Amino acid sequence: MGTIILRYGELALKGGNRIAFVRRLRRNVRVALKSEGLSAEVRSVGQRVYVTTDTVESALDPLSRVFGLVSLSPIVQVEADMDAIAAECVRQAREIGLNAERSFRVRARRTDKTFPHISPQIDRLAGEAIVRETSARVDLSKGADVTIGVEVTHEGAMVFGRSIPAPGGLPIGVEGKVVVLLSGGIDSPVAAWMMMKRGCGIIPLHFGQNEVETAKALDNARALERYAYGWRIRPEVVSHDETIAPTLDALRRIGEERWSCVFCKRALLTRAAALADELGANAIVLGDSLGQVASQTLANMELISYGISKPILRPLIGMDKTEIVAIARRIGTFDISTREAESCPFLPSRPITRGRMDKLLEIMERLRQEEGIET
Amino acid sequence: MGTIILRYGELALKGGNRIAFVRRLRRNVRVALKSEGLSAEVRSVGQRVYVTTDTVESALDPLSRVFGLVSLSPIVQVEADMDAIAAECVRQAREIGLNAERSFRVRARRTDKTFPHISPQIDRLAGEAIVRETSARVDLSKGADVTIGVEVTHEGAMVFGRSIPAPGGLPIGVEGKVVVLLSGGIDSPVAAWMMMKRGCGIIPLHFGQNEVETAKALDNARALERYAYGWRIRPEVVSHDETIAPTLDALRRIGEERWSCVFCKRALLTRAAALADELGANAIVLGDSLGQVASQTLANMELISYGISKPILRPLIGMDKTEIVAIARRIGTFDISTREAESCPFLPSRPITRGRMDKLLEIMERLRQEEGIET
Repeated sequence: MGTIILRYGELALKGGNRIAFVRRLRRNVRVALKSEGLSAEVRSVGQRVYVTTDTVESALDPLSRVFGLVSLSPIVQVEADMDAIAAECVRQAREIGLNAERSFRVRARRTDKTFPHISPQIDRLAGEAIVRETSARVDLSKGADVTIGVEVTHEGAMVFGRSIPAPGGLPIGVEGKVVVLLSGGIDSPVAAWMMMKRGCGIIPLHFGQNEVETAKALDNARALERYAYGWRIRPEVVSHDETIAPTLDALRRIGEERWSCVFCKRALLTRAAALADELGANAIVLGDSLGQVASQTLANMELISYGISKPILRPLIGMDKTEIVAIARRIGTFDISTREAESCPFLPSRPITRGRMDKLLEIMERLRQEEGIET
Repeated sequence: MGTIILRYGELALKGGNRIAFVRRLRRNVRVALKSEGLSAEVRSVGQRVYVTTDTVESALDPLSRVFGLVSLSPIVQVEADMDAIAAECVRQAREIGLNAERSFRVRARRTDKTFPHISPQIDRLAGEAIVRETSARVDLSKGADVTIGVEVTHEGAMVFGRSIPAPGGLPIGVEGKVVVLLSGGIDSPVAAWMMMKRGCGIIPLHFGQNEVETAKALDNARALERYAYGWRIRPEVVSHDETIAPTLDALRRIGEERWSCVFCKRALLTRAAALADELGANAIVLGDSLGQVASQTLANMELISYGISKPILRPLIGMDKTEIVAIARRIGTFDISTREAESCPFLPSRPITRGRMDKLLEIMERLRQEEGIET
């Protein structure tokens, strides 16, 4: 039986937000462990969450994908005795690979005030033992390469040196639901992941242009599931025919085929807004980044979002492609998104890149009057 | 007289976008140097931009803040002779501080095909000299700590080992204009900076609640100017009285004071949309992040943006506070934003945190009928 300490670190948590945060975090942690078939006890003590389980190593991987956690450390329990504590510190320092080129610090806390050494003495004695055995350099600042934690309680002492990073953010579920337009490309799965990271449950909506891209989008949704403990991802797929085919035909008839992409995206957003209303979601999420392709201009964004009733969130709007790709690799969607692609069969030869609002309104009016189509 | 090599790296630049990008980049680089009182020649050769100036060291600092650049390196010119090249490589390796614990690679390019060594030979000969003199480790991969570049041309050889990071992104101006709601806080200057990074000229709009916060907002705008080469930042300040006072009074009279913040933000966005129309901007930028304070909920975002005619961009929506603070520190706005604060004098005691749309519409209707106020 072992214990893992879970750290959460949202700087700005206040009052009621904090209570809801920690409750949901514990729930999502339980779901993470249960869905991997692990049994464990999850409890809060002060500002920390502890997991007790007999499968510590297996629990680390799923826990490292729970939003709201910034890091986790398996704890080794030893006797509340200074020699035993120092010996365990040395053992973990070696395990982590501390050596003359790396720095460390020991940070002790003592809740058992009858323990014969106060915290700074524990730091110093354990630190000296580590220096003796590994030649590592002491650095008492936050900048140390490794921090080894010690806690001395009435029940014994705990030592934790390994620190496994977790994604940070807020527990999924505390910030409501969003509909995400999910494609087979690189950007939209990253946008979805970032909103999950900020506590949103996601509802993927995919526009099925062809089977290749739909398969990639659904695989992306599955890849995101690995981070979705506490939320069930149920992708919706809408077909080209039911969404936009009549409008595209009509645009061709009135000689405005270059506007196909604008009207297609507007139709998708209208559909997404309706789905959001139906499922109680408050916003629509897009993978838009500025200037990546000729049509991702501010002018086109204005046309595309004109009159859409839900807020449109674009978490990648200020990011460079290199930054987006780095996240896609980390979360496991990059290899899916970069599989063989099949381009949209409805792409006109020269799509509008900086369309004007008055022209959009004029075309909408012509579609209504000449073709009987509401857009 | 010395030369600096400027690297741009936007992965996804294509066709016409690339031409506009490089032209604007050269222009912004010229503005950066000129506004620091430096004279220089700026030219493109192939996929690189070169700056030639007799004040290389002074030019590095402003250039490191030009959006669109990912890094820059001062070049040292030497004779096109293998011994001279190797000696200069060793000198720069020492200057950078290469030693047994760090790795490096030499990457040579040869445009003068009469030079007696081909590129891989130059790599090897210069690399061997560096190993001999510094004991540094060779690492031919991208992961090397240091890459030393060598170019052999008909005019001589160039060696560049130092690499100064630049912010990446797109040159300011290639992606149009946006109105940014700029406060004295931490988030909105970071949001503004991220949109500048993606090529947008920014027009800050500040809501003047009190003199302390207005001074901070204006100082933040000035701090952003250091990154704005090629764009003139002209902040607009609107007062509480002219924007929202009558609406807040009316809300008090009808007993809906808890909705003050929602109506205040709506009034600001309406004002921002009008300013955007007036100045030809295509979007409004907010520093919103999810869940930071009780009122930053998806539900409130929906109420606040309902019916606003311009797209609202929230570049921080998927980011954690720690990430936002890291950028604020890097760009020099953190110390301004965290100066002594004066809270908004119009803040109700329990602002609405998850308001309902039907309630918003009902209050808007009451304000119209009972108070004669359009919101």
